[in-house]
Amino acid sequence: MNEKIVIELNTKIPFNNNVDFCVGTGRLGLALTEEYLSELKFVQDEIGFKYIRGHGLFSDDVAIYHEYEEDGVKKVEYNYTYLDRIFDKFIELNIRPYLELGFMPYEMASGTQTVFYWKGNTTPPKDYKLWTDMVIALLKHLRGRYGEEVLEWPIEVWNEPNLPGFWYKADMQEYFKLFKETFNAIKTYDSRFKVGGPAICGVKDAEWIQGFLEFCKAEGLTPDNITRHHYTVEFPERVGHYDYHKLEDSEMRFDNLQSTRDIVDSFEEYKGTPIHITEFSTSYTPKGVIHDTNLNAAYLAEQLSRIGDMNEAYSYWTFGDVFEEQGVPDSLFHGGFGMVAAGNIPKPAFWTFSFYKQLKNFGSECVFRDKTSVIVKSEKGYAGILWNIQSDAYTRDIELPVEANKDGFTFITKTVDEECCNPLKLWHDLGEPAYPVKEETELIKSAAYPLVQSAVVNTANDKAELSISVKKNGVVYFELSHRTFTPDRGYDYERALKA
Amino acid sequence: MNEKIVIELNTKIPFNNNVDFCVGTGRLGLALTEEYLSELKFVQDEIGFKYIRGHGLFSDDVAIYHEYEEDGVKKVEYNYTYLDRIFDKFIELNIRPYLELGFMPYEMASGTQTVFYWKGNTTPPKDYKLWTDMVIALLKHLRGRYGEEVLEWPIEVWNEPNLPGFWYKADMQEYFKLFKETFNAIKTYDSRFKVGGPAICGVKDAEWIQGFLEFCKAEGLTPDNITRHHYTVEFPERVGHYDYHKLEDSEMRFDNLQSTRDIVDSFEEYKGTPIHITEFSTSYTPKGVIHDTNLNAAYLAEQLSRIGDMNEAYSYWTFGDVFEEQGVPDSLFHGGFGMVAAGNIPKPAFWTFSFYKQLKNFGSECVFRDKTSVIVKSEKGYAGILWNIQSDAYTRDIELPVEANKDGFTFITKTVDEECCNPLKLWHDLGEPAYPVKEETELIKSAAYPLVQSAVVNTANDKAELSISVKKNGVVYFELSHRTFTPDRGYDYERALKA
Amino acid sequence: MNEKIVIELNTKIPFNNNVDFCVGTGRLGLALTEEYLSELKFVQDEIGFKYIRGHGLFSDDVAIYHEYEEDGVKKVEYNYTYLDRIFDKFIELNIRPYLELGFMPYEMASGTQTVFYWKGNTTPPKDYKLWTDMVIALLKHLRGRYGEEVLEWPIEVWNEPNLPGFWYKADMQEYFKLFKETFNAIKTYDSRFKVGGPAICGVKDAEWIQGFLEFCKAEGLTPDNITRHHYTVEFPERVGHYDYHKLEDSEMRFDNLQSTRDIVDSFEEYKGTPIHITEFSTSYTPKGVIHDTNLNAAYLAEQLSRIGDMNEAYSYWTFGDVFEEQGVPDSLFHGGFGMVAAGNIPKPAFWTFSFYKQLKNFGSECVFRDKTSVIVKSEKGYAGILWNIQSDAYTRDIELPVEANKDGFTFITKTVDEECCNPLKLWHDLGEPAYPVKEETELIKSAAYPLVQSAVVNTANDKAELSISVKKNGVVYFELSHRTFTPDRGYDYERALKA
Amino acid sequence: MNEKIVIELNTKIPFNNNVDFCVGTGRLGLALTEEYLSELKFVQDEIGFKYIRGHGLFSDDVAIYHEYEEDGVKKVEYNYTYLDRIFDKFIELNIRPYLELGFMPYEMASGTQTVFYWKGNTTPPKDYKLWTDMVIALLKHLRGRYGEEVLEWPIEVWNEPNLPGFWYKADMQEYFKLFKETFNAIKTYDSRFKVGGPAICGVKDAEWIQGFLEFCKAEGLTPDNITRHHYTVEFPERVGHYDYHKLEDSEMRFDNLQSTRDIVDSFEEYKGTPIHITEFSTSYTPKGVIHDTNLNAAYLAEQLSRIGDMNEAYSYWTFGDVFEEQGVPDSLFHGGFGMVAAGNIPKPAFWTFSFYKQLKNFGSECVFRDKTSVIVKSEKGYAGILWNIQSDAYTRDIELPVEANKDGFTFITKTVDEECCNPLKLWHDLGEPAYPVKEETELIKSAAYPLVQSAVVNTANDKAELSISVKKNGVVYFELSHRTFTPDRGYDYERALKA
Repeated sequence: MNEKIVIELNTKIPFNNNVDFCVGTGRLGLALTEEYLSELKFVQDEIGFKYIRGHGLFSDDVAIYHEYEEDGVKKVEYNYTYLDRIFDKFIELNIRPYLELGFMPYEMASGTQTVFYWKGNTTPPKDYKLWTDMVIALLKHLRGRYGEEVLEWPIEVWNEPNLPGFWYKADMQEYFKLFKETFNAIKTYDSRFKVGGPAICGVKDAEWIQGFLEFCKAEGLTPDNITRHHYTVEFPERVGHYDYHKLEDSEMRFDNLQSTRDIVDSFEEYKGTPIHITEFSTSYTPKGVIHDTNLNAAYLAEQLSRIGDMNEAYSYWTFGDVFEEQGVPDSLFHGGFGMVAAGNIPKPAFWTFSFYKQLKNFGSECVFRDKTSVIVKSEKGYAGILWNIQSDAYTRDIELPVEANKDGFTFITKTVDEECCNPLKLWHDLGEPAYPVKEETELIKSAAYPLVQSAVVNTANDKAELSISVKKNGVVYFELSHRTFTPDRGYDYERALKA
Repeated sequence: MNEKIVIELNTKIPFNNNVDFCVGTGRLGLALTEEYLSELKFVQDEIGFKYIRGHGLFSDDVAIYHEYEEDGVKKVEYNYTYLDRIFDKFIELNIRPYLELGFMPYEMASGTQTVFYWKGNTTPPKDYKLWTDMVIALLKHLRGRYGEEVLEWPIEVWNEPNLPGFWYKADMQEYFKLFKETFNAIKTYDSRFKVGGPAICGVKDAEWIQGFLEFCKAEGLTPDNITRHHYTVEFPERVGHYDYHKLEDSEMRFDNLQSTRDIVDSFEEYKGTPIHITEFSTSYTPKGVIHDTNLNAAYLAEQLSRIGDMNEAYSYWTFGDVFEEQGVPDSLFHGGFGMVAAGNIPKPAFWTFSFYKQLKNFGSECVFRDKTSVIVKSEKGYAGILWNIQSDAYTRDIELPVEANKDGFTFITKTVDEECCNPLKLWHDLGEPAYPVKEETELIKSAAYPLVQSAVVNTANDKAELSISVKKNGVVYFELSHRTFTPDRGYDYERALKA
Repeated sequence: MNEKIVIELNTKIPFNNNVDFCVGTGRLGLALTEEYLSELKFVQDEIGFKYIRGHGLFSDDVAIYHEYEEDGVKKVEYNYTYLDRIFDKFIELNIRPYLELGFMPYEMASGTQTVFYWKGNTTPPKDYKLWTDMVIALLKHLRGRYGEEVLEWPIEVWNEPNLPGFWYKADMQEYFKLFKETFNAIKTYDSRFKVGGPAICGVKDAEWIQGFLEFCKAEGLTPDNITRHHYTVEFPERVGHYDYHKLEDSEMRFDNLQSTRDIVDSFEEYKGTPIHITEFSTSYTPKGVIHDTNLNAAYLAEQLSRIGDMNEAYSYWTFGDVFEEQGVPDSLFHGGFGMVAAGNIPKPAFWTFSFYKQLKNFGSECVFRDKTSVIVKSEKGYAGILWNIQSDAYTRDIELPVEANKDGFTFITKTVDEECCNPLKLWHDLGEPAYPVKEETELIKSAAYPLVQSAVVNTANDKAELSISVKKNGVVYFELSHRTFTPDRGYDYERALKA
Repeated sequence: MNEKIVIELNTKIPFNNNVDFCVGTGRLGLALTEEYLSELKFVQDEIGFKYIRGHGLFSDDVAIYHEYEEDGVKKVEYNYTYLDRIFDKFIELNIRPYLELGFMPYEMASGTQTVFYWKGNTTPPKDYKLWTDMVIALLKHLRGRYGEEVLEWPIEVWNEPNLPGFWYKADMQEYFKLFKETFNAIKTYDSRFKVGGPAICGVKDAEWIQGFLEFCKAEGLTPDNITRHHYTVEFPERVGHYDYHKLEDSEMRFDNLQSTRDIVDSFEEYKGTPIHITEFSTSYTPKGVIHDTNLNAAYLAEQLSRIGDMNEAYSYWTFGDVFEEQGVPDSLFHGGFGMVAAGNIPKPAFWTFSFYKQLKNFGSECVFRDKTSVIVKSEKGYAGILWNIQSDAYTRDIELPVEANKDGFTFITKTVDEECCNPLKLWHDLGEPAYPVKEETELIKSAAYPLVQSAVVNTANDKAELSISVKKNGVVYFELSHRTFTPDRGYDYERALKA
């Protein structure tokens, strides 16, 4: 893993870094809460995602759909009080909804099956007309309030219909019907909306993708995006409240993603259709203890370096720890999906996303990728990310072609590893307080930021030589930038250090 | 320096940790500015001082004193618009004025001599009655606005009259007159006010203290506090805008402080009168490059461990870098007095003060002090500070008597040294931008916070064994606290790390 | 109503103005939401209540109580994640919980009956030991987190058990059992806690109070407070989503309150026991259209002038419009209980409470009360509130004894009436937008603040003469304060107006 | 003044409403202060100006220019610490500098003459090369920091050189030299910069404009803007600290502005060159008591309705009361130039500007203007402003052509007059506290906002009939907008009012 990296002049490597396209969230109703919004603000201030996707848009806590009787006639009315409150905040935080259409309002449902602690109804509508009316009414309402930008908000039909818990009996034909009715209603209303599916997870995924596209082809539907999920752990062992997983081999998981890409491209009609990974993470449970570790950060660093190869977009599940699928979290750290724990404590994985965003801001021209690193170039110089998944610490040497600069280059490293940025350990060492008081939260937070260090790198022979140490489960972001040395009259840094 | 520390049960060492009593500031008129208030808010939020002392209360930028003619008669009026604005903000930030009475309003002055770029007039009043009227009017105004707490705000007469630049010809007798007139006027108004002097620096200090107390004795005055300053560098070499100093031997400086204590105590009447060090720092110039270094932090750590031995109170000069005595700062880092640089970048020395405040909050019972460490005890456990002034890195072993605790002890370290918390270096490596843009300031700030790490210390034989590494010019704060381990049902930290 | 008020010197009238003791809230789970906290912050900043009381402490959305099986044994665990989040915020907003113990956790319930859209379970516990264990565990947890102040937080057992919807079959004996078990458990844990009941509303109130006290007497229980509710409208007509009520005669309602006082005082053992009106308002439904009107403000002004006569404390139901008992509000103004509408629009009734708080801050010595006014005195002068319930506009003349003051008196009026402070009308005139956008909310808010006017009142013969116009459904707060005229040199107000 | 306004269909009136182009400020150094920035934020949040213009860019408190000696040679250095701090804040508040080049740095000055309490040096440079070097260095620095938008920031050479106090001896030829040197240096650096002059006030204005353009013509210079000032009061009487003025006839002042326009247009080369009124107000002194009155607001309403007729742009002098030209303000209200008094109390004149900004936001198509009103139209409906300068109250009737709308029109009025929005009166009635405490400031502020009222206007015969009452010195903004009535199911506003 630690052979020297030598970059040749004019190297150019494909790399689709779409890290900030979308992020996942607990059910939309939770977006009413202060802790949720505080965590989302933190994430948006530090990283900044474009879209946010979550379940429960039509669930009863958002309270959109209502039936009533008047003069003996059953009628329908919609209530957007909470929806507007939620989406207004999203816009204020400069993030837009990725509209996942689901689950079923209780009054519209054909059955009583629910999923999650918060009881999302997962049965088909008792009448598809009620469903499509509700969807179109919603889109009209959104355009009235937010304007024509709503046309660009991606739409996805339902969530994980390939699991019986999420869609009654995982009935494929019934899902295809839902998709068709929804797709046609939306496109009839305004064909510019972008509608995708089938939003499946890894269970029988090939069968579903194949079946879905055959259905679409037969029905003459052209989905704008193909959507699926991507998790990378084995089935967990549950002990008490918690799930202990083993990570899967990442190659196997990437192969699985590639096979979806291949199926899509095997259809003449759908070749090249963008694939959106509308959920991904390591563990797929909100009690997956790995989520809070430095290992998670390192493992995701590899994921983010390659997931764009076969997918246009991808969305980490989830931005924060306000989440109730398996009940209210029992403790500060509890293996929640979030990048951020309660009280805005960034977990190590947060920094993996932050570093990829910094990389994207630095430059888009990739010059190197391997299993443990990625490096990009821009006019400013070079930036890169290195990670170490479960290996012993090592040092990576890097040789980069540069134009010599008399003032040298500024070399910045930002390091996240088990020694310098490990809030989980500090919390454990404190005794694992389930409900920390403010002082404890602040202390834990003070151990949750990268170690930032710098040096001046002098160049000779048009080469810059770097050495970066990457500890076990560490992730290191670096920048090497042209330096302009502008000391003030009389200032001598070296002399200042001596007294 | 690095022999093992072994604390015996029931050890008790005297230690006057009054770190948060007072802090210095640039001229009061600067307290109108936003950058000043932002830095002060930062300092108050993180440390929290009780009083703030600075020059220029009566200088013309605060604009209190005005003369005018009416019907051919010269009259006086006072304008408290700016004063109230400044003090209102101080109160809002939970800090109170330590009232230094000076300098002279231009219209009241007997001469034209000024000090500083901002031209504080340093001549005696043309008429002492005008002066005492102004002082008493001010105190009345303050009581009207802020209530009876004003009686507790310490008052000091003038600043460094022993320097000819600060008081016309450094005329000792004229200063004594100023003191007497002021003291008597205030005590006549309300004897509960606390009035001190002579506010001298180290030049001819013994002579001044002796003379001042003899004068007071002869005149029957009982000053409430004796005040002086304390700087610890040799005369600098100026290059361009900057001053390069050599640090003095700290023992010599402490001896000098002790000699003031001895003089005061040699007077029967004044024995035990509190001494306030109303200014102290390493360098006494606002371009003293040492101020921004980690060395400064380490040197001050020793100062703070001992300065309370012979002085009731002391006030670091100054909290922030908004300061104009030698002109407007030319560059972000410029050797300014502040604990905090522009844009709220904490300098290493900031953390020395923060650590002493944390130590004070932890407990007041001292169990150990030597040249490079101080340790206190409380019901919670132990806390301490270690520092390393210009030595190579070493490790300090500490043995502390504890009651065994089945869950062990939480051991927290907060480390500030040249490698992990060195904003000056990062700025230098960036090329020393004089006027950093926001992104640069944020980057520098990200390298300006302590490295926080933790461990669980298990105890055997009623002893806890610690090992703390202290790098060159490093300062390390630690806490060892009883730990209550309350893992949630099923949570296993060690297992969570493996996947 | 509008005869002249003439106050004699040294008049003193009893008046218990306890306006800021407590305020009601929607279910506690809603306190997690941002809109709720924003409204509460607004109320606390402007008025400032000491306690807050609401339902749902033990309901499943707060998620405290959980059962699980381990090794074949049923066990119990408590989760305080949300509870701490809620109460931390309350403390931060300087308000404390008035602990209403209820409703029943689903897993502890003996039945399935629920109340409200949000489905609070209203059946007795399946095992009273589980209930009292949960209550005591909670109190211990609260003391651990918030300290000994928790001992002062009032405790009330359940809510409106006299209604079958709120307590299974409105079973009086079962409630008494609940009360006794809870009371004894708490007093056994720490007898300093203050525990009250029976928390009834107006249905069969005399019967319940009488029965409750007889039961307590028989069992040797001494409740610290007697609690009941107070609403003042007739049974409504429901049209669509909304309830249209007729206001009841206020005398009748006060008589009803007095009768409770009389019953309590008829028991030797309970004579003088404080009565807490733990809920009061005009309409008792969250769609009671009167809540948003100026009439509501005027009617409450009378209530607040007299409700303290027979009750130690009282709590308006509720501070804000985040409320879900009958579903999510359908529209900005919807007859919600709140003093404040969504987006922090103060309703007219908000100002009634604000004015009574200002009156309390001004002074506690009452000099006049009649059906449409109350006046208090302090060293500063006089303050009062006048209101007009459904009458035509009139002018009230007031003569107040004063010591003549050469600079006169400052006379301030703050007026809230249908013409100058009527956000409901502005919203109606806008077309009744259900979900206003930010600009609409701001516009409505700009019509929701009192008209503030002033005058200088000159005095002669030791009397001040005021004339205050009170329009229909108006509420006017006034202050008459000693004035100190301190014009700056050369400033002439009258001349300034001419140019 | 109060004849009925009848608007015919398709009426279109020219009207240049450029109210938000620019606003004036006290010396730039004051932009470092917190109170200044707080007031500017308030103004920007409520109104939002594009540019800000003030004196003192090169004065010594901003501290840009410095000379020093090195190796026996005099050298120059620039310090942008404060400049960047100021301009960074401007950008943050979404306002850009209108660069007024002046006054002279002390070290560059040829003489010692100063203007103002804050002593701006008003003499020519000792060497024009030093001056142009400093100007060009500044522009380069600004482009480096703020990018190419700097090219659009207007530049003006000096301030009021036609007054001997502002330019040594008011030496016209010397000013022309300054202009030429500056203009040529800037245009040589980058010809896209926009440079204007001669920045004169009303003294000998025709002579200066004529002379300036003849000079430019002779030298082949093409100024981008012609700049002058506009004040509308007679010479004041000073009493104590204050100035009492008589307002001039507004026709005379508009004629004077027109004559400048005519002179410019009389030059073939300069015909149509934009004229910028870089300062205007009623009184030209910072102690002009009229500034704080409702009369000022009404008088300015007329000014703003017509000043755009002969001038492309205009800039009110000034946004706030942080100002030191005649010393530090002695009292809260002191006749300061600001729209806003200390503590963010909007003066009546603030609302005149706010109303013109609201008018601009509403629509740009003017349908009516007379001496006391202006009305514009847009798709939404109509908006207008009415004012009353020193007349008795009257009612204005307005007939507007509309398309009938079944839900009617929403009619909003916002009224500012001596009765409903008069903070000066409230302050006077309080006794004219020079330094109000926070509670007093809040009380005064509560009387400083418009009275907002509404109605529904029903239409018949395609006409809407309005009646607007305008009290003495009142300003009324109104909007008449299409109304969409969307009552919720069952909501009946009229019925809600009855109970």
